Amino acid sequence: MSSVVASTAIRGRFLDIQNTVAQAREIHDQVRYVEDGLLITQAGKIQWFGRWEDGQQQLRQLESSIQVEHYPDQLIVPGFIDTHIHFPQTEMVGAYGEQLLEWLNTYTFPTEIQFQDKAYADQIAHFFVNELLKNGTTTALVFCTVHKESVDALFEAAEQYQMRLIAGKVLMDRHAPEALTDTAENAYTDSKELIEKWHGKGRNLYAITPRFAPTSTPEQLKRAGQLKTEYPDVYIHTHLSENTNEIAWVKELFPEQNGYLDVYHHYGLTGNKSVFAHCVHLEEHEWDCMHQTNSAIAFCPTSNLFLGSGLFPLKKTWDKQVKVGLGTDIGAGTSFNQLQTLNEAYKVQQLQGDKLSAFESLYHATLGGAKALALEDKLGNFNIGKEADFVVLNLNATALQTLRQQRAKNIEDALFALFTMGDDRNIEATYIYGQKAYQQSAS
Amino acid sequence: MSSVVASTAIRGRFLDIQNTVAQAREIHDQVRYVEDGLLITQAGKIQWFGRWEDGQQQLRQLESSIQVEHYPDQLIVPGFIDTHIHFPQTEMVGAYGEQLLEWLNTYTFPTEIQFQDKAYADQIAHFFVNELLKNGTTTALVFCTVHKESVDALFEAAEQYQMRLIAGKVLMDRHAPEALTDTAENAYTDSKELIEKWHGKGRNLYAITPRFAPTSTPEQLKRAGQLKTEYPDVYIHTHLSENTNEIAWVKELFPEQNGYLDVYHHYGLTGNKSVFAHCVHLEEHEWDCMHQTNSAIAFCPTSNLFLGSGLFPLKKTWDKQVKVGLGTDIGAGTSFNQLQTLNEAYKVQQLQGDKLSAFESLYHATLGGAKALALEDKLGNFNIGKEADFVVLNLNATALQTLRQQRAKNIEDALFALFTMGDDRNIEATYIYGQKAYQQSAS
Repeated sequence: MSSVVASTAIRGRFLDIQNTVAQAREIHDQVRYVEDGLLITQAGKIQWFGRWEDGQQQLRQLESSIQVEHYPDQLIVPGFIDTHIHFPQTEMVGAYGEQLLEWLNTYTFPTEIQFQDKAYADQIAHFFVNELLKNGTTTALVFCTVHKESVDALFEAAEQYQMRLIAGKVLMDRHAPEALTDTAENAYTDSKELIEKWHGKGRNLYAITPRFAPTSTPEQLKRAGQLKTEYPDVYIHTHLSENTNEIAWVKELFPEQNGYLDVYHHYGLTGNKSVFAHCVHLEEHEWDCMHQTNSAIAFCPTSNLFLGSGLFPLKKTWDKQVKVGLGTDIGAGTSFNQLQTLNEAYKVQQLQGDKLSAFESLYHATLGGAKALALEDKLGNFNIGKEADFVVLNLNATALQTLRQQRAKNIEDALFALFTMGDDRNIEATYIYGQKAYQQSAS
Repeated sequence: MSSVVASTAIRGRFLDIQNTVAQAREIHDQVRYVEDGLLITQAGKIQWFGRWEDGQQQLRQLESSIQVEHYPDQLIVPGFIDTHIHFPQTEMVGAYGEQLLEWLNTYTFPTEIQFQDKAYADQIAHFFVNELLKNGTTTALVFCTVHKESVDALFEAAEQYQMRLIAGKVLMDRHAPEALTDTAENAYTDSKELIEKWHGKGRNLYAITPRFAPTSTPEQLKRAGQLKTEYPDVYIHTHLSENTNEIAWVKELFPEQNGYLDVYHHYGLTGNKSVFAHCVHLEEHEWDCMHQTNSAIAFCPTSNLFLGSGLFPLKKTWDKQVKVGLGTDIGAGTSFNQLQTLNEAYKVQQLQGDKLSAFESLYHATLGGAKALALEDKLGNFNIGKEADFVVLNLNATALQTLRQQRAKNIEDALFALFTMGDDRNIEATYIYGQKAYQQSAS
């Protein structure tokens, strides 16, 4: 593992969004495009960023041993942020023929049982972290399984790269196979132990992770809320309003609550560090509750399409002032890659008659995702002092992309073409905390 | 160019569908999976196909110079058939922000104007044919531009590989830039000349290609119908019911006809060799007309999503007994690849609560597509006497695919995983008329 105190100096073409915005139309004015830029990191953070020609004095102050890494033809953007993904489902992408509830019982639960074995969890955790890096994802909010071992495995794998990962043990004390259930009590004690062990250790952060309302008893949700009160700085990560049968089931299970979101809200699980995956079918009063509690949504287009869950109304997040990030939702999602996720995000909006611009897409994948995770002070762009997580993109990874990029009218058009046709081949290198953590091998 | 009289012998794992079916549920019984098979071609056609152990005598009868090409770990399937694609739009995949009619005016027409230049058309035609091969597509029904040169360019490029391509000059005499319009009269004479020149020459076939009803005058459609009467063996290829604004426009332009399809039907443009791209919003009586005339639909999922056109009801093609094939619809579609197209086809069905099985997907991409093009006697599976177009698939093109394939329960599950995660990296080799036309370079 390389030391984080070292400096790194990167020269190239940089693109980011300088500030968070309240409306999509404001993004354009926050786009920062530096055609020949310099970025200097120090101890994992951005120490200097600007035009190459303005950075010569800064460069001279660095140790003479520092070599400037030059990416003359690439595009460097902030690391992608995945606000919803399941690491134990890495191996089950493309499980056929079911919608949410049947898909869980048929495929997901049998897969997750394997993670009681720490050695197996370790193996998949390493694979998973490598997939994130290969796809330019530098931060993710991750479901583990009900087993404590799965959390240890994931954080141990992430630590090797000093990745900023948020994860937690699943809470599930009903409506699942016995090998995958805990109890209200040990969900509490195990989570507490894991919080003490991992939250704030290095760049790791913890998320209290009830799978979804149907698989937790009221008693377990109450204990989850208690934990959140004791550790207000940790996250809440769960699912919400993905599928109409699921919603009907929740209403049946919790008749005393005013709809699905109200179950979580009742137990104190909404808030600035609460992330709800999907939210495809929120009711009006639920949008209001999301806004009022400053809770965030993880929009997972490839998953919503693959499971036939429905079309997420992204535009409404702006209208209702609700935070939103992008999620791949592996393994119901079909790709680890945020470029492919954005391709389908665009299509989901087109089906609703809405436009998703390239710059808005970039925002959701970077700074907007950081805001959804309440990490916009640390991640999401090249502002000085932020953590130095970024991706080097090759816009010409295939012959067809090259043909199209030769005809790109401007950087926005080039970016849109990348988001339409891109995949992991476009990720040339991924830097975590100022260090190169992944370099695509020459093909 | 290699001679087609030579024999080729291929050993490997083969999968195809033996016969066309009337209902999706019948496909399973027609699946032919030969784990260790042998395929021998002679003069471009399949001379023998069966189990390796049963083919030794056939092998001995071949010239001693013939080497058996062995693909021990791959999967060999019939070549993919793309029933709707625009070669002049190769360079414009990922054009931002519009639905059909605005997209045509903003992006498509300016792009197509370039194809009056034969040298430019040649360049893109070669690129296009290479993309087809790279993606395992061995037959396509292709839109050219209004220019005769574009048709010559495409057939000349396809001839180099002896590909079975169907294409034609666009007919368009109104509602388009002057540089892209013909007249009713020269649309007729130019098409006639091209039919005489190309239809039935080698494996080339011609399609009379009115862009869509709004860009042809009644007089031009009448001349198209006249041409079809004079050359009943050629194809009709056009667009139908893609977008609700388009449909409203057609009804306005042709008030005397009973809806969109009736415009084509009225001018004699429906029939067994007529292919209508999209058909997302057909009315009930239009489904009936499609069935009664034995016309075919090209289902183009990536395009329907990218332009926000809507969700094609694939299941209805079985209910209504209407032929259907898959189309990539480059450049409104976002990939040349039929695996990626099937990924999105599945999602489009899931959103409608319907299941699209892996074997049904394979059917649409191969034998079903052949039937849509009235070529099921020549293409679509490994039956003896058929033309020897096939694809060698590597199921493990990425680390994630390998992880998933190791867990595949059976060939159907393996195929579904391929269709969910696959792309051009899975196409290891493409054979056209018995000869290897493409081999992926080692990466």
